[in-house]
Amino acid sequence: MKIKDDIREIKLEDLKADEFIKQKVREISSAVGNGIAVNALSGGVDSSTVTLLAHRALGDRLKTYFIENGLMREGEPQRVVSFFRKLGIKVELFDARKEFFNALKGLTDPEEKREAITQTFYKNVFGRLVKESGAEFLLHGTIYTDVEETLAGVKRQHNILEQLGIDTKKAFGYKVIEPLVELRKPAVRKVAKALGLPEEVYNRPPFPGPALAARVIGEVTPERIETVRKATKIVEDESSGSGAFQYLAILHADMVTGMREGKRDYGHQIEVRCWDSKDAVTGEPTRLPHDIMERLADRITSEMPQVVSVTYNITRKPPSTIEAV
Amino acid sequence: MKIKDDIREIKLEDLKADEFIKQKVREISSAVGNGIAVNALSGGVDSSTVTLLAHRALGDRLKTYFIENGLMREGEPQRVVSFFRKLGIKVELFDARKEFFNALKGLTDPEEKREAITQTFYKNVFGRLVKESGAEFLLHGTIYTDVEETLAGVKRQHNILEQLGIDTKKAFGYKVIEPLVELRKPAVRKVAKALGLPEEVYNRPPFPGPALAARVIGEVTPERIETVRKATKIVEDESSGSGAFQYLAILHADMVTGMREGKRDYGHQIEVRCWDSKDAVTGEPTRLPHDIMERLADRITSEMPQVVSVTYNITRKPPSTIEAV
Repeated sequence: MKIKDDIREIKLEDLKADEFIKQKVREISSAVGNGIAVNALSGGVDSSTVTLLAHRALGDRLKTYFIENGLMREGEPQRVVSFFRKLGIKVELFDARKEFFNALKGLTDPEEKREAITQTFYKNVFGRLVKESGAEFLLHGTIYTDVEETLAGVKRQHNILEQLGIDTKKAFGYKVIEPLVELRKPAVRKVAKALGLPEEVYNRPPFPGPALAARVIGEVTPERIETVRKATKIVEDESSGSGAFQYLAILHADMVTGMREGKRDYGHQIEVRCWDSKDAVTGEPTRLPHDIMERLADRITSEMPQVVSVTYNITRKPPSTIEAV
Repeated sequence: MKIKDDIREIKLEDLKADEFIKQKVREISSAVGNGIAVNALSGGVDSSTVTLLAHRALGDRLKTYFIENGLMREGEPQRVVSFFRKLGIKVELFDARKEFFNALKGLTDPEEKREAITQTFYKNVFGRLVKESGAEFLLHGTIYTDVEETLAGVKRQHNILEQLGIDTKKAFGYKVIEPLVELRKPAVRKVAKALGLPEEVYNRPPFPGPALAARVIGEVTPERIETVRKATKIVEDESSGSGAFQYLAILHADMVTGMREGKRDYGHQIEVRCWDSKDAVTGEPTRLPHDIMERLADRITSEMPQVVSVTYNITRKPPSTIEAV
């Protein structure tokens, strides 16, 4: 397994998915040897692909955890776990909602929120599970864009500690293996498809590491996560046919004036972002038809009375980013 | 002049503008007698119409002030004053920027901000000017929609104290005359046109009483007003041909992630709202073409580097309101 400073991208047009899979399975086998490896599955295309590759390489010597951090989309933990169980891959669901919400309490600064989630995930929850498992190897779904953006200082990714010069062996007690680090998202999707994952997985819109916490401006509480979770469901329902690269709902901290039952009433604002993009490095707002945008706003404000205003992002990346937090 | 509890609307189709003008000129003359009246001109269609009606009735016995509160649009104070001077109506420009920004310092609650502006306008600035002028009568551009929304509790308007049961004679030292209180906006525009005001005045999009302060979420400072002022200019430039009833830019308090020169950078968010509406009571977001929305975002983020994100409102009124604060 190559974890080195000058990672070379394998471009989509150069990728032979079947050969890539064989090679990665070999590399994982040889790195782990007779040891035990663990990984955390989030249900996204990256971690799903890593889980399948590692399961092919290691069989039951791979321990896969789904950590329920309370920040996932509606029904996601159960859906992901049961999907992989059907493939014969045992995934253990670990409920860590209390740990995460406690760590997030009172934090409004985006960096502090990310840091709290990272630390809770690695040190408190996953680190403990890894130690208890006796594994020495952690498989991780880092992709090329993560490395690039982190090195450029655009985004702090919590999953490429090694690239940032952090000795993960020392810091967290395990060694990181990143089988997808040479690929951008479209190439990962190609590998996922070749592994036999269904379209709902390999074409799933990207979902950020800190999950719905990345979509809450201001303090992250169970109530505020529930608000953005419902809005996310509506946006995903209505936008899934749009061909957009990614679509998301953001709960703002700013309260705005609205009207309910003829009376003035303060309420929340939800921002919808839909992106056209190849690789998340640059992006343009999807030109959603106006009737879809208006239906989104109608549904969000009628199904969620605490929301009185819905906006649509019209800014490119750059100067915007895909996510807001 | 009728200032009574049960104001009857004169509907657009029933309005005979020339007769209405004659009647209001007569009513103002008879109410003021040989006295002196004052009014504050903001440059909007309502206060411009009141100024012309009262000038016809009273000539030089009308004293008109333009109060520069620092919250107006770019170049507006000078433009308005010189326009009325050309019509032979002397308007006195009074610089009260310090008073307003001092009163707004540290306030983030929308009601407190409105109250600070109202109190500064009436008690500190205009009240003082009125007292010094020796006038007993204040002419005011209240319209029917203001009364309706205030009585319904939707909006607190600062300019219809009388309707709210406040004794303005006692509270502020003058008597209020409201010649437009039976009209909704389209009827006011018809009267303005009949008075010979140019289209840029009678078709001017409505502008809220607290001016750009109503378009700043969070604290109102000279810097934040300057940000929303520039964005407003861009939105008005690009949307003026859209046929929208009203178009506006709002500066959010929430900071969002963006990218500048390849690096992650927090920045401001501007929300654009364009409304299709007949009377501001209900409204729908204007279906601006996507290329116009994108040009708006491109111009705002390139001309204002502190802004990294621009959104477009897609919510109806209700449950939204026209303005956000």
